[in-house]
Parts: sequence; structure tokens; C-alpha cells
Amino acid sequence: MGKVVADITMSLDGFITGPDDRPGRGLGERGECLHNWVMGGPWRYDDEGRRFAPVDVDRHVLERAMGSIGAGIIGRRMFDVTGGWGGNPPGGPDARYFVLTHSVPPEWAGRTSPFTFVTDGIDSALAQARAVAGDKDVGIGGGANVIQQYLAARLVDELRLHVAPVLLGTGKRLFGNLGSQTIELDRTGVIESPYATHLFFTVRR
Amino acid sequence: MGKVVADITMSLDGFITGPDDRPGRGLGERGECLHNWVMGGPWRYDDEGRRFAPVDVDRHVLERAMGSIGAGIIGRRMFDVTGGWGGNPPGGPDARYFVLTHSVPPEWAGRTSPFTFVTDGIDSALAQARAVAGDKDVGIGGGANVIQQYLAARLVDELRLHVAPVLLGTGKRLFGNLGSQTIELDRTGVIESPYATHLFFTVRR
Repeated sequence: MGKVVADITMSLDGFITGPDDRPGRGLGERGECLHNWVMGGPWRYDDEGRRFAPVDVDRHVLERAMGSIGAGIIGRRMFDVTGGWGGNPPGGPDARYFVLTHSVPPEWAGRTSPFTFVTDGIDSALAQARAVAGDKDVGIGGGANVIQQYLAARLVDELRLHVAPVLLGTGKRLFGNLGSQTIELDRTGVIESPYATHLFFTVRR
Repeated sequence: MGKVVADITMSLDGFITGPDDRPGRGLGERGECLHNWVMGGPWRYDDEGRRFAPVDVDRHVLERAMGSIGAGIIGRRMFDVTGGWGGNPPGGPDARYFVLTHSVPPEWAGRTSPFTFVTDGIDSALAQARAVAGDKDVGIGGGANVIQQYLAARLVDELRLHVAPVLLGTGKRLFGNLGSQTIELDRTGVIESPYATHLFFTVRR
């Protein structure tokens, strides 16, 4: 059985989006810089012919992350804001995602690929994702609320934080409502690029 | 003229103390772990004969930080919670600190060493600290409110964050009220120990 890995990008002050994240503006206002490491440099939502050319170090981090993941779990809001990545989510044509939601969008009723909508909670989504992932890891991709739920339930084995060198000041906090338990971590590695400091931790049981 | 350096320890989720920080419990409840890197391992407020034996990597970071600082600026609450370090603040017998406050404690009126109380704002405190520091750096030591004020005013040249591998969930946030401007950083280095990931950034102008 693989691990459960929470993998997300945040600003140094802990925001995973700037304010007013919405379709076409998935990282919020002023939030593009969070993904400079994914894009290979500064970019804007309205760039034409947007480049996707991470520098070597960052590409290595991306590829390693993608290669280990057998199934993903995301929240309904992330699905909506990304527009389901137009049906082509990260991970290639065989990628499978489980979307935590209160209600299944009618057009997705009965479908399971690439998105399976799960209405009966985080344990159910994890069990379904594990079944699909097999020996590979289950990736918890966000948003913040989903990651916090899995962390608080002590279901996360690894935390991969890609910290962008910026203070945003406002937006959606990754750790805004984690509750009041102490969650101890062990650092397992750091990888640096000009665009992100990639921090890897295991979660203590 | 030296640089202005904000230097502080936070949890991975951005807290510089747990809840209920107070004299004798300066890092709040469950907050001792933030300073494991300073102490050389786990410790508790009520330890007798508390050790202060950072591992080599952490001692190097501490010594380098201390060696560069010619004067410090802290907030009144940090002064109160630490009890003014019993008159022996970090930095040795010649250390000088400027304490931002609304009113000078009567016993400190007219005194300047090791603590000078400043009632006319952050610019005044910085000018006084620069005059004392000479070619050395001015260290902004906290708390969160003081660091945020200097960051928001674009007066900080360097940010040194010692990130403890723990999620506290509650307490005082380092970046809780920074405002809504984007502050871009450049990473200049990372140093790891089992007890902290030391992140060094310069602040873009």
C-alpha cells in the first residue's frame, strides 16, 4: 500500500491563493507567482501562449511527485475553480481523481473517470483512492480545507510543501483552521530553486 | 550601514507561539518545540537545569545571526513576556535593544541599556538602533506585530525564518495581519537540522 501525500504550493506567509480565486484565476488575484516554479518563471493569467517550462530542479520535483501518485483527492471547490482542468487533470490520460463534494454535478452522475465524485466523506474517498492507486501513493491535492481535514484526522503520511518566495498578505490560508492539536513532523529533505523552496516532511504517528 | 534583518522562529503553519503565551511560558502552550533547535532537543518550561546545547548546525546559525547584529528592536509584549530576559537579553553584556511601546515602564524611564524604550514609532526606533549598530545589522526580533509593521513599511532587507517541523494549529501568527500588498523575496539559502529548517531571504525593493 502506498502513502498518503499532501502536496501543495503556498506563499511563505501560508497562502495557497491570493484573494478572489475563481475560474480562470485559480490562484486568486496576485497569486500567479505561487506557480512560477511550475511555469518556469513569472507569468500572468492573461498570457497568450503561456509557457510551461519549469527549470530543471523544479521539473525534477514535479516529475517525482507525479510519478509516485496513483490517485488524487481534491475538494469540490478546486474542481470548480480549475474547471476540472477541461477534463485533462495533471497526471496524464490515466489519472484518477476523487472529488469530495456534498452533491454530485448532474453531468458527472455515474461517471468515474477521470473524476469520481464522493459524497460520503474523507474516509470513503481515501478508501476508493487507495483501491485505484494500488502500490502507488494517494495524493491529497487541496484545497486547504481538504488537506486540513486529512491532516487533522491523522491520515497524512507525508507533506510536500512548495514554498514560493513571496508574502501575499491575503487569500486562502493553507493552515487556517487546523484545530488545536500538535502535529509533529520530521523533515526528510529540502530542494531549492529560484522559484520555490520544496520542503518534504513525514508526519509522526 | 548594516542591513535590517527580521529573524524569528515559526512553526510550519506560521505560529511564533502556541496559545496563552505569558511570562515563564514565552512560547505559549505546546510551544516549547519551536525552540528545540535553540535548546538542542525537546524540553519543557518546567525542566530543571534546562539544557542549552544546540546541535552544530543550529549553533552555527545562532552564532552567525548573533554575530551580525549590532542592535535589536522588539515589541513591548515580547519584553514583558520574557521579563526582559532578567536584564540579560541575547547578545551578551553589550547588547542593546529598542523596545517599541506606548508608554515607558517607570523603572526604565531615562535608562538606555540594555533596553531603550521608544514611544514615537518604528522609524524612530530604527534610526536609534542604526545609530547604535553602526556597520552591523539591526535585528527585528519580534513579536509578530513588530515584524509585520517593518515588513509592511518596506524597511526589512532580510528575512531569516527558522521553521520548526511542527503544526501547532493555534497561537500567534507571524503573518496574521500583513495587509494586502505583495512582498517579493529572493531566497538566499537554506540550512537544515533535525529541529529546524532555516530559510534565508532578501526582500525585493
